[in-house]
Amino acid sequence: MLKFRIIVVDRTRSHFLKEGEGFYQKRLKNYAQLEWVEVKPVKITKGRSEEEVLAAEGETIARRLMAGDYLVTLDRKGEQYDSVELAGWFRKLSVDIGGWINFVIGGPLGLSKEMLARAHKVLSLSRFTLTHEMSRLVLLEQIYRSLTILRGEKYHK
Amino acid sequence: MLKFRIIVVDRTRSHFLKEGEGFYQKRLKNYAQLEWVEVKPVKITKGRSEEEVLAAEGETIARRLMAGDYLVTLDRKGEQYDSVELAGWFRKLSVDIGGWINFVIGGPLGLSKEMLARAHKVLSLSRFTLTHEMSRLVLLEQIYRSLTILRGEKYHK
Repeated sequence: MLKFRIIVVDRTRSHFLKEGEGFYQKRLKNYAQLEWVEVKPVKITKGRSEEEVLAAEGETIARRLMAGDYLVTLDRKGEQYDSVELAGWFRKLSVDIGGWINFVIGGPLGLSKEMLARAHKVLSLSRFTLTHEMSRLVLLEQIYRSLTILRGEKYHK
Repeated sequence: MLKFRIIVVDRTRSHFLKEGEGFYQKRLKNYAQLEWVEVKPVKITKGRSEEEVLAAEGETIARRLMAGDYLVTLDRKGEQYDSVELAGWFRKLSVDIGGWINFVIGGPLGLSKEMLARAHKVLSLSRFTLTHEMSRLVLLEQIYRSLTILRGEKYHK
Protein backbone atom coordinates (compact mmCIF):
# COMPACT_ATOMS: atom_id res chain seq x y z
CA MET A 1 0.00 0.00 0.00
CA LEU A 2 1.35 3.40 -0.95
CA LYS A 3 2.07 5.77 1.91
CA PHE A 4 1.57 9.46 1.34
CA ARG A 5 2.50 12.18 3.80
CA ILE A 6 1.29 15.63 2.84
CA ILE A 7 2.99 18.45 4.67
CA VAL A 8 1.35 21.86 4.45
CA VAL A 9 1.99 25.21 6.05
CA ASP A 10 -0.80 26.42 8.32
CA ARG A 11 -4.32 25.07 8.68
CA THR A 12 -6.82 25.48 5.86
CA ARG A 13 -8.81 28.65 6.45
CA SER A 14 -11.24 28.46 3.53
CA HIS A 15 -14.39 26.68 4.62
CA PHE A 16 -15.17 25.03 1.30
CA LEU A 17 -11.58 23.96 0.66
CA LYS A 18 -11.42 22.42 4.13
CA GLU A 19 -14.57 20.45 3.33
CA GLY A 20 -13.10 19.36 -0.01
CA GLU A 21 -9.91 18.18 1.67
CA GLY A 22 -11.92 16.09 4.09
CA PHE A 23 -13.87 14.58 1.22
CA TYR A 24 -10.75 13.37 -0.59
CA GLN A 25 -8.79 12.47 2.55
CA LYS A 26 -11.59 10.12 3.54
CA ARG A 27 -11.79 8.54 0.08
CA LEU A 28 -8.01 8.22 -0.19
CA LYS A 29 -7.82 6.16 2.97
CA ASN A 30 -9.44 3.24 1.16
CA TYR A 31 -6.50 3.17 -1.25
CA ALA A 32 -3.41 4.31 0.61
CA GLN A 33 -2.01 5.34 3.94
CA LEU A 34 -2.35 9.07 4.32
CA GLU A 35 -0.73 11.35 6.86
CA TRP A 36 -1.68 15.01 6.85
CA VAL A 37 0.80 17.26 8.61
CA GLU A 38 0.21 20.96 9.23
CA VAL A 39 3.25 22.94 10.29
CA LYS A 40 3.07 26.38 11.86
CA PRO A 41 3.54 29.30 9.48
CA VAL A 42 6.27 31.83 10.15
CA LYS A 43 4.86 35.33 10.45
CA ILE A 44 5.76 37.84 7.80
CA THR A 45 6.94 40.80 9.87
CA LYS A 46 8.75 44.03 9.20
CA GLY A 47 12.49 43.60 8.86
CA ARG A 48 12.15 39.94 7.92
CA SER A 49 12.68 39.21 4.24
CA GLU A 50 10.61 36.67 2.30
CA GLU A 51 13.74 34.52 2.04
CA GLU A 52 14.07 34.46 5.82
CA VAL A 53 10.43 33.49 6.26
CA LEU A 54 10.79 30.69 3.71
CA ALA A 55 14.05 29.47 5.23
CA ALA A 56 12.47 29.32 8.70
CA GLU A 57 9.41 27.49 7.37
CA GLY A 58 11.74 25.14 5.51
CA GLU A 59 13.44 24.22 8.78
CA THR A 60 10.11 23.46 10.42
CA ILE A 61 9.11 21.29 7.47
CA ALA A 62 12.48 19.51 7.45
CA ARG A 63 11.88 18.39 11.05
CA ARG A 64 8.92 16.33 9.82
CA LEU A 65 11.01 14.49 7.22
CA MET A 66 13.04 11.36 7.92
CA ALA A 67 16.42 10.78 6.30
CA GLY A 68 15.87 8.86 3.08
CA ASP A 69 12.23 9.91 2.76
CA TYR A 70 11.17 10.49 -0.80
CA LEU A 71 10.41 14.19 -1.18
CA VAL A 72 8.14 15.87 -3.70
CA THR A 73 7.75 19.63 -3.54
CA LEU A 74 5.02 21.53 -5.32
CA ASP A 75 5.89 24.48 -7.47
CA ARG A 76 4.11 25.83 -10.50
CA LYS A 77 7.38 25.83 -12.45
CA GLY A 78 7.97 22.15 -11.73
CA GLU A 79 7.43 19.07 -13.85
CA GLN A 80 3.97 18.47 -15.29
CA TYR A 81 2.26 15.12 -15.67
CA ASP A 82 -1.09 14.07 -16.95
CA SER A 83 -3.17 11.94 -14.57
CA VAL A 84 -2.24 8.62 -16.21
CA GLU A 85 1.45 9.49 -16.07
CA LEU A 86 1.06 10.42 -12.40
CA ALA A 87 -0.49 7.02 -11.75
CA GLY A 88 2.39 5.33 -13.59
CA TRP A 89 4.89 7.25 -11.52
CA PHE A 90 3.18 6.18 -8.28
CA ARG A 91 3.23 2.56 -9.44
CA LYS A 92 6.96 2.87 -10.07
CA LEU A 93 7.53 4.49 -6.67
CA SER A 94 5.56 1.74 -4.94
CA VAL A 95 8.17 -0.69 -6.25
CA ASP A 96 11.26 1.50 -5.92
CA ILE A 97 10.78 2.94 -2.45
CA GLY A 98 9.43 1.28 0.62
CA GLY A 99 8.73 4.32 2.77
CA TRP A 100 6.62 7.39 2.66
CA ILE A 101 6.18 9.65 -0.32
CA ASN A 102 6.26 13.14 1.14
CA PHE A 103 4.54 16.00 -0.61
CA VAL A 104 5.34 19.47 0.61
CA ILE A 105 3.11 22.44 -0.21
CA GLY A 106 4.38 25.83 0.93
CA GLY A 107 2.45 28.71 2.40
CA PRO A 108 1.42 31.90 0.57
CA LEU A 109 5.05 32.64 -0.35
CA GLY A 110 5.75 29.13 -1.63
CA LEU A 111 8.86 27.17 -0.66
CA SER A 112 12.49 28.10 -0.12
CA LYS A 113 15.08 27.42 -2.81
CA GLU A 114 16.76 24.96 -0.45
CA MET A 115 13.54 22.97 -0.03
CA LEU A 116 12.94 22.90 -3.79
CA ALA A 117 16.55 21.83 -4.39
CA ARG A 118 16.33 19.09 -1.79
CA ALA A 119 13.34 17.46 -3.46
CA HIS A 120 13.58 14.31 -5.55
CA LYS A 121 10.90 15.80 -7.72
CA VAL A 122 9.36 19.25 -8.13
CA LEU A 123 5.80 18.74 -9.31
CA SER A 124 3.61 21.35 -10.98
CA LEU A 125 -0.18 21.10 -10.72
CA SER A 126 -0.69 23.94 -13.17
CA ARG A 127 1.25 26.76 -14.81
CA PHE A 128 -1.22 29.05 -13.05
CA THR A 129 -0.49 30.31 -9.57
CA LEU A 130 -3.04 28.57 -7.36
CA THR A 131 -3.64 29.61 -3.78
CA HIS A 132 -1.69 27.27 -1.52
CA GLU A 133 -4.99 26.08 -0.07
CA MET A 134 -6.39 25.31 -3.51
CA SER A 135 -3.23 23.34 -4.31
CA ARG A 136 -4.05 21.00 -1.44
CA LEU A 137 -7.41 20.13 -2.93
CA VAL A 138 -6.04 19.66 -6.46
CA LEU A 139 -3.20 17.46 -5.17
CA LEU A 140 -5.53 15.30 -3.07
CA GLU A 141 -7.90 14.88 -5.99
CA GLN A 142 -5.06 13.89 -8.32
CA ILE A 143 -3.61 11.37 -5.88
CA TYR A 144 -7.08 9.90 -5.45
CA ARG A 145 -7.63 9.85 -9.21
CA SER A 146 -4.26 8.13 -9.75
CA LEU A 147 -5.11 5.39 -7.31
CA THR A 148 -8.43 4.73 -9.01
CA ILE A 149 -6.54 4.56 -12.32
CA LEU A 150 -4.10 2.03 -10.84
CA ARG A 151 -7.02 -0.09 -9.65
CA GLY A 152 -8.73 0.17 -13.02
CA GLU A 153 -11.73 1.90 -11.50
CA LYS A 154 -14.17 4.16 -13.23
CA TYR A 155 -13.73 7.52 -11.51
CA HIS A 156 -11.07 8.97 -13.82
CA LYS A 157 -13.27 9.00 -16.94
CA MET B 1 -15.55 46.37 -17.84
CA LEU B 2 -14.79 42.85 -19.04
CA LYS B 3 -17.78 40.61 -19.61
CA PHE B 4 -17.42 36.91 -18.91
CA ARG B 5 -20.04 34.30 -19.68
CA ILE B 6 -19.24 30.88 -18.29
CA ILE B 7 -21.25 28.06 -19.82
CA VAL B 8 -21.19 24.74 -18.00
CA VAL B 9 -22.99 21.45 -18.44
CA ASP B 10 -25.28 20.53 -15.55
CA ARG B 11 -25.51 22.07 -12.10
CA THR B 12 -22.68 21.63 -9.62
CA ARG B 13 -23.41 18.62 -7.46
CA SER B 14 -20.47 18.78 -5.07
CA HIS B 15 -21.42 20.78 -2.01
CA PHE B 16 -18.00 22.28 -1.36
CA LEU B 17 -17.35 23.12 -5.00
CA LYS B 18 -20.73 24.84 -5.20
CA GLU B 19 -19.80 26.92 -2.17
CA GLY B 20 -16.41 27.74 -3.74
CA GLU B 21 -18.06 28.85 -6.96
CA GLY B 22 -20.36 31.16 -5.05
CA PHE B 23 -17.38 32.61 -3.22
CA TYR B 24 -15.55 33.56 -6.42
CA GLN B 25 -18.67 34.53 -8.39
CA LYS B 26 -19.48 37.07 -5.70
CA ARG B 27 -15.93 38.46 -5.63
CA LEU B 28 -15.71 38.59 -9.41
CA LYS B 29 -18.75 40.79 -9.69
CA ASN B 30 -16.76 43.68 -8.25
CA TYR B 31 -14.38 43.48 -11.21
CA ALA B 32 -16.35 42.29 -14.22
CA GLN B 33 -19.74 41.35 -15.54
CA LEU B 34 -20.31 37.68 -14.98
CA GLU B 35 -23.00 35.46 -16.45
CA TRP B 36 -23.17 31.86 -15.31
CA VAL B 37 -25.08 29.57 -17.66
CA GLU B 38 -25.89 25.96 -16.86
CA VAL B 39 -27.11 23.87 -19.78
CA LYS B 40 -28.87 20.55 -19.39
CA PRO B 41 -26.65 17.49 -19.73
CA VAL B 42 -27.49 14.84 -22.29
CA LYS B 43 -27.97 11.44 -20.70
CA ILE B 44 -25.44 8.76 -21.48
CA THR B 45 -27.67 5.85 -22.45
CA LYS B 46 -27.19 2.50 -24.12
CA GLY B 47 -26.88 2.73 -27.86
CA ARG B 48 -25.77 6.34 -27.72
CA SER B 49 -22.07 6.83 -28.36
CA GLU B 50 -19.98 9.35 -26.44
CA GLU B 51 -19.63 11.32 -29.68
CA GLU B 52 -23.41 11.55 -29.98
CA VAL B 53 -23.75 12.76 -26.40
CA LEU B 54 -21.05 15.38 -26.94
CA ALA B 55 -22.56 16.51 -30.25
CA ALA B 56 -26.00 16.92 -28.65
CA GLU B 57 -24.53 18.84 -25.70
CA GLY B 58 -22.56 20.96 -28.18
CA GLU B 59 -25.79 21.97 -29.91
CA THR B 60 -27.36 23.00 -26.60
CA ILE B 61 -24.28 25.05 -25.75
CA ALA B 62 -24.20 26.64 -29.21
CA ARG B 63 -27.73 27.98 -28.64
CA ARG B 64 -26.34 30.12 -25.82
CA LEU B 65 -23.69 31.73 -28.02
CA MET B 66 -24.24 34.78 -30.20
CA ALA B 67 -22.64 35.10 -33.61
CA GLY B 68 -19.31 36.86 -33.21
CA ASP B 69 -19.01 36.00 -29.52
CA TYR B 70 -15.47 35.27 -28.46
CA LEU B 71 -15.28 31.61 -27.50
CA VAL B 72 -12.82 29.90 -25.17
CA THR B 73 -13.18 26.18 -24.57
CA LEU B 74 -11.47 24.33 -21.76
CA ASP B 75 -9.48 21.23 -22.48
CA ARG B 76 -6.49 19.81 -20.67
CA LYS B 77 -4.59 19.54 -23.95
CA GLY B 78 -5.13 23.22 -24.74
CA GLU B 79 -2.86 26.20 -24.38
CA GLN B 80 -1.34 26.91 -20.98
CA TYR B 81 -0.75 30.31 -19.45
CA ASP B 82 0.62 31.47 -16.19
CA SER B 83 -1.61 33.83 -14.21
CA VAL B 84 0.19 37.00 -15.32
CA GLU B 85 -0.04 35.94 -18.96
CA LEU B 86 -3.75 35.24 -18.50
CA ALA B 87 -4.19 38.75 -17.12
CA GLY B 88 -2.29 40.19 -20.09
CA TRP B 89 -4.50 38.25 -22.46
CA PHE B 90 -7.66 39.59 -20.78
CA ARG B 91 -6.30 43.13 -21.04
CA LYS B 92 -5.72 42.61 -24.75
CA LEU B 93 -9.22 41.14 -25.21
CA SER B 94 -10.80 44.07 -23.37
CA VAL B 95 -9.38 46.31 -26.11
CA ASP B 96 -9.85 43.99 -29.09
CA ILE B 97 -13.40 42.77 -28.49
CA GLY B 98 -16.37 44.64 -27.18
CA GLY B 99 -18.66 41.76 -26.32
CA TRP B 100 -18.70 38.81 -24.05
CA ILE B 101 -15.84 36.39 -23.51
CA ASN B 102 -17.49 32.99 -23.40
CA PHE B 103 -15.86 30.14 -21.55
CA VAL B 104 -17.29 26.69 -22.15
CA ILE B 105 -16.58 23.81 -19.76
CA GLY B 106 -17.91 20.43 -20.83
CA GLY B 107 -19.52 17.74 -18.73
CA PRO B 108 -17.86 14.50 -17.55
CA LEU B 109 -17.03 13.55 -21.15
CA GLY B 110 -15.58 16.93 -22.06
CA LEU B 111 -16.47 18.76 -25.25
CA SER B 112 -17.11 17.68 -28.83
CA LYS B 113 -14.41 18.09 -31.46
CA GLU B 114 -16.66 20.57 -33.26
CA MET B 115 -16.95 22.74 -30.15
CA LEU B 116 -13.18 22.65 -29.59
CA ALA B 117 -12.57 23.48 -33.26
CA ARG B 118 -15.03 26.38 -33.18
CA ALA B 119 -13.22 28.07 -30.27
CA HIS B 120 -10.97 31.08 -30.71
CA LYS B 121 -8.84 29.62 -27.97
CA VAL B 122 -8.60 26.23 -26.25
CA LEU B 123 -7.35 26.87 -22.74
CA SER B 124 -5.79 24.29 -20.42
CA LEU B 125 -5.99 24.76 -16.66
CA SER B 126 -3.69 21.83 -16.01
CA ARG B 127 -2.21 18.83 -17.80
CA PHE B 128 -4.08 16.77 -15.22
CA THR B 129 -7.63 15.65 -15.84
CA LEU B 130 -9.70 17.64 -13.38
CA THR B 131 -13.34 16.83 -12.68
CA HIS B 132 -15.48 19.20 -14.73
CA GLU B 133 -16.83 20.64 -11.48
CA MET B 134 -13.32 21.27 -10.15
CA SER B 135 -12.46 23.03 -13.43
CA ARG B 136 -15.20 25.56 -12.70
CA LEU B 137 -13.62 26.53 -9.42
CA VAL B 138 -10.09 26.74 -10.84
CA LEU B 139 -11.29 28.85 -13.78
CA LEU B 140 -13.24 31.24 -11.55
CA GLU B 141 -10.27 31.62 -9.24
CA GLN B 142 -7.93 32.33 -12.15
CA ILE B 143 -10.25 34.90 -13.70
CA TYR B 144 -10.55 36.57 -10.32
CA ARG B 145 -6.78 36.44 -9.81
CA SER B 146 -6.20 37.95 -13.27
CA LEU B 147 -8.48 40.85 -12.55
CA THR B 148 -6.69 41.60 -9.28
CA ILE B 149 -3.41 41.51 -11.21
CA LEU B 150 -4.79 43.97 -13.77
CA ARG B 151 -5.83 46.31 -10.95
CA GLY B 152 -2.44 45.96 -9.28
CA GLU B 153 -4.02 44.48 -6.16
CA LYS B 154 -2.40 42.28 -3.61
CA TYR B 155 -4.28 38.99 -3.85
CA HIS B 156 -2.10 37.29 -6.44
CA LYS B 157 1.06 37.19 -4.29
